[in-house]
Amino acid sequence: MGGDYAPGNVVAGSLDALRESGGRFSLVLVGQRERIEEEIDRALPSPPGYTIAHAPEVIDMRDSPTAALRSKKESSIAIGLRLQRDGKADAFVSAGNTGAVLSASTLILGRLEGVGRPSIGALIPTAGSPCLLIDSGATMDCQPRHLYEFGVMGSIYMRTMRGVSTPRVGLVSVGEEENKGNEATVEAFRLLKGAPVDFIGMIEGRDLLKGKVDVAVCDGFVGNIVLKFGESVPAFLKARFLSFAAKSVKAKLIALIARSGLRTVLREMDYQEQGGVPVLGVRGVTIIGHGGSSPLAIKNMIFRAEEMVKRHVHRKIQEALQA
Amino acid sequence: MGGDYAPGNVVAGSLDALRESGGRFSLVLVGQRERIEEEIDRALPSPPGYTIAHAPEVIDMRDSPTAALRSKKESSIAIGLRLQRDGKADAFVSAGNTGAVLSASTLILGRLEGVGRPSIGALIPTAGSPCLLIDSGATMDCQPRHLYEFGVMGSIYMRTMRGVSTPRVGLVSVGEEENKGNEATVEAFRLLKGAPVDFIGMIEGRDLLKGKVDVAVCDGFVGNIVLKFGESVPAFLKARFLSFAAKSVKAKLIALIARSGLRTVLREMDYQEQGGVPVLGVRGVTIIGHGGSSPLAIKNMIFRAEEMVKRHVHRKIQEALQA
Repeated sequence: MGGDYAPGNVVAGSLDALRESGGRFSLVLVGQRERIEEEIDRALPSPPGYTIAHAPEVIDMRDSPTAALRSKKESSIAIGLRLQRDGKADAFVSAGNTGAVLSASTLILGRLEGVGRPSIGALIPTAGSPCLLIDSGATMDCQPRHLYEFGVMGSIYMRTMRGVSTPRVGLVSVGEEENKGNEATVEAFRLLKGAPVDFIGMIEGRDLLKGKVDVAVCDGFVGNIVLKFGESVPAFLKARFLSFAAKSVKAKLIALIARSGLRTVLREMDYQEQGGVPVLGVRGVTIIGHGGSSPLAIKNMIFRAEEMVKRHVHRKIQEALQA
Repeated sequence: MGGDYAPGNVVAGSLDALRESGGRFSLVLVGQRERIEEEIDRALPSPPGYTIAHAPEVIDMRDSPTAALRSKKESSIAIGLRLQRDGKADAFVSAGNTGAVLSASTLILGRLEGVGRPSIGALIPTAGSPCLLIDSGATMDCQPRHLYEFGVMGSIYMRTMRGVSTPRVGLVSVGEEENKGNEATVEAFRLLKGAPVDFIGMIEGRDLLKGKVDVAVCDGFVGNIVLKFGESVPAFLKARFLSFAAKSVKAKLIALIARSGLRTVLREMDYQEQGGVPVLGVRGVTIIGHGGSSPLAIKNMIFRAEEMVKRHVHRKIQEALQA
């Protein structure tokens, strides 16, 4: 198990999930056995339903994904995903090295037929309902066909997992005209017009937070930059309020109240608590969490993985893209 | 003259600039003569120092830039830039169709030697001092060499125009490692290491608002999306506060105070008042403003253009990139 607070937060979140699950599923805790057992001892009495799979090697948050996967065959990431590939688990959840989890999911589980590139979809808050930003960091250089796939996968995810009956899919670009954007986007526009989704056309950066679409399609380079930019807004506002508060006693009071309001309002921008992001396009279920995932986030990731298994998200994606 | 409030706001801002300039410069008001004269009549007594150049044709905000430039040779954009090319003006300022102003600047003024692609640099607020996001929408598909040029041009702009003695230049990507990012970015990293700028390496989306760099380099596709996303944050927060305020009287009070604080804090995110964005890499000075530019914004754009002429920004860019 990985992440900045592993195995503590991961074990705690896993046991919480088991306690709440009422026996619907069991968990395999993959990682360094002794350290996992120490954490379990702290949380006694522990719920039933878990086993431990010892993983002697550790892929660090700073390790290069491909190199680490090649040299550390017995990491929790590799072992956990092999368990799924071999049918001994239905899903894999990790707060470890994002790149490594992503590469290992693609390498070990394999891509679904009809999928050229895997993707990760992150839910971002909007003035309306949350929007799936896909790809949010898996595939950097995308061909138009990959953007098409992201649109289809994202639409299926939002319908199946979030109950959006007809997800509105938009292609992130620099204007609403279909000839505006970079080469891949302009070509992807033409493909998406023929996709089995409710494609509403190009959207701009300003449309994301407006809630204009349920699925925002872009390459992983753009998606990752926008996602991280958005995540940094609360800290930016905090810094701004601090310098504003320094101006006068009245300003200090306003800033104090404003920040308490902001905290409430921005809680939804705390992607951490939302239960990680799914890897879409692979033969199985992988959920990747922030390195700093709290026990609550880990628990939510496990529940999200359970839902993805139950609702056959990846089978539905395969059916749509094979056609 | 163009923009959503032309010629009203443009004339008003121009006359304000003349009044404040104390005769340092004169202005040529390019547009439909009668309409300009009507606006001047409203603002009597008008200051000395202006002439009118009649432009019978109008490029609409929705016109396709290239088509409009081909068919409307007598638009204010074409006439104004030809005045500069022919040495009858030193700079061109417009709140009109951004794409058309940009294309016309490249076509009529021409690119500087050593510049492969023109760019526009937008100042974004950060927790520290403003950061120049370059390119913020001129060039969609960039080769590594173009990103290199943006870094050099941005650095010169921030030093010359904003007094930043050693501007820190960062390359926008998805991680700090030099091998992370899309193909163009990874290669641009290698080029920028040898650039005559203080290149601090890759930066992430979250670093932009932190104020980690003075110049953030990216292609115009990414830059435009990030810029517009950022511009939409205030409206998003307003929407969030409105739904929060609906919850209780106490919440309403908090929201009211918070929003007044926010307004102050976010005023700097109001790019409109900042005086437009410069086109860098062309043989001359062009400043492009928002379509909705206020008279204040127009005035600031004129002063910014004056500074760019005085400080020889484009000569300095040429010297750096020719080498």
